[in-house]
Amino acid sequence: MMTPEQLVRSVTAITGYARHAGVEVVSAEAGRVTLSLDKKPELTQFNGFFHGGVVSGLADHAAGAAATTALPAGKVAVTVDLHVNFLSPASGDRLFAKARAIQVGSTICVVTVDMETETSDGLKPCAIASVTLRVVDMPALAETPRT
Amino acid sequence: MMTPEQLVRSVTAITGYARHAGVEVVSAEAGRVTLSLDKKPELTQFNGFFHGGVVSGLADHAAGAAATTALPAGKVAVTVDLHVNFLSPASGDRLFAKARAIQVGSTICVVTVDMETETSDGLKPCAIASVTLRVVDMPALAETPRT
Amino acid sequence: MMTPEQLVRSVTAITGYARHAGVEVVSAEAGRVTLSLDKKPELTQFNGFFHGGVVSGLADHAAGAAATTALPAGKVAVTVDLHVNFLSPASGDRLFAKARAIQVGSTICVVTVDMETETSDGLKPCAIASVTLRVVDMPALAETPRT
Amino acid sequence: MMTPEQLVRSVTAITGYARHAGVEVVSAEAGRVTLSLDKKPELTQFNGFFHGGVVSGLADHAAGAAATTALPAGKVAVTVDLHVNFLSPASGDRLFAKARAIQVGSTICVVTVDMETETSDGLKPCAIASVTLRVVDMPALAETPRT
Repeated sequence: MMTPEQLVRSVTAITGYARHAGVEVVSAEAGRVTLSLDKKPELTQFNGFFHGGVVSGLADHAAGAAATTALPAGKVAVTVDLHVNFLSPASGDRLFAKARAIQVGSTICVVTVDMETETSDGLKPCAIASVTLRVVDMPALAETPRT
Repeated sequence: MMTPEQLVRSVTAITGYARHAGVEVVSAEAGRVTLSLDKKPELTQFNGFFHGGVVSGLADHAAGAAATTALPAGKVAVTVDLHVNFLSPASGDRLFAKARAIQVGSTICVVTVDMETETSDGLKPCAIASVTLRVVDMPALAETPRT
Repeated sequence: MMTPEQLVRSVTAITGYARHAGVEVVSAEAGRVTLSLDKKPELTQFNGFFHGGVVSGLADHAAGAAATTALPAGKVAVTVDLHVNFLSPASGDRLFAKARAIQVGSTICVVTVDMETETSDGLKPCAIASVTLRVVDMPALAETPRT
Repeated sequence: MMTPEQLVRSVTAITGYARHAGVEVVSAEAGRVTLSLDKKPELTQFNGFFHGGVVSGLADHAAGAAATTALPAGKVAVTVDLHVNFLSPASGDRLFAKARAIQVGSTICVVTVDMETETSDGLKPCAIASVTLRVVDMPALAETPRT
């Protein structure tokens, strides 16, 4: 039986998107997960800030992790619907997604995510997300294609 | 004065995120833009399908392009809020985002996006998105950092 | 076994909110339902237009009806999450919600809704909505409290 | 110059929808507004709970109030887009919307809303909302049609 942190690290490691983007697991407990990303050229908007798609993608991955760590072993939460409000440009060199499961049901979970960017002036909120997820049986991770 | 297609190609080329992911411009006219992405490992979920963050990111980029091509020269639309409903796994080898501006105002634009994935059985809808954007002055592209 | 139209009329009649607001069933077939509302003082914003809450409420009711008519008998779709983009003031004397189920699953349905308002210049789009619903067992309607 | 509470009471009083539904102003300061509604038949779903449209409508009205009280005098925030996640049935006899402006700009505001219902067991979260609003000039309230 994995701890929440082992579970999030494991799922992140086998997810091509997260691994290639450079997603780091800052902390993970049941229902609460914080992830981060360092800025690099393939993650930027034309103005040099983190792209909105990257902000959305990190929110999505963090939401899935937060919900899944709150579920019984053998279950995984997959996103049904993702809503992101962009508050300000993600202008810092690092991006954080702090996800919290606010509802964990047998079929549906709801997770909110606070996104912040680390600038020379400190952490600045740059987006919030609310995510609806569906609970499904977790595939055997060992058999998952490692892309 | 650029054509809509030149504009979308230009913005895509200077956007690190879109260029590195491999976003292709399938078609572009004022208010309607279709983009595509070929599957590769850095775009996948742990099950090997396109990651939800990639689906969201392509929707976001297509929405910005559709709105911007409908605006007067010198204006660009930046995303305020992005809502994606995932309908089915993006299981094909190619992902399409067909964006259409349904409202183009002087301060706010609204764009809907139909997402499809190309499988051996043909095109399959995999997500829809609705995107709210704000109209701002376009920065001089020549001076934009080319990340 | 009720027809889709009988089902929508029945559910609307026992829903205090819809009945008191004056919701009318314009048409109903499996997965597609159009409802309307005539303007009256208790439905208006301070500027005299339909209130955003009324637009949202009619979208929600229409989405539930469209999804439920597409489900097997004995199942009802309840809203998990509602997203409304307001395009222009609902300035006419009548409001229409045209709902269409774009995904009907055993646990989740997704419905899009086009909202229009009837003005002296004809029908004008005023909002769009995307709605995620969950499938549950329908309670015996005869035993439902008729508020 | 009105206080935030006077402003919210004034706008609520001239809004036919809010007045007829019975919206009460619990508290109001700049950027933070709490409203409530008592249950009555015209606000209910077929199961006797508050209808999702009522939950959405109260969220919308509270969001507009929270944003407007944070704006300079003479400006009002109108909803561009409303997203509601329903967490559990609003089964109590009273519904609360606690709105907080998390971004107040010169053209765009973003407000989050926590919805709770008062049951015999105490307050229970029933929904959350995130709302994007646009800043416009406030019409002279004295001249607004009092529907």
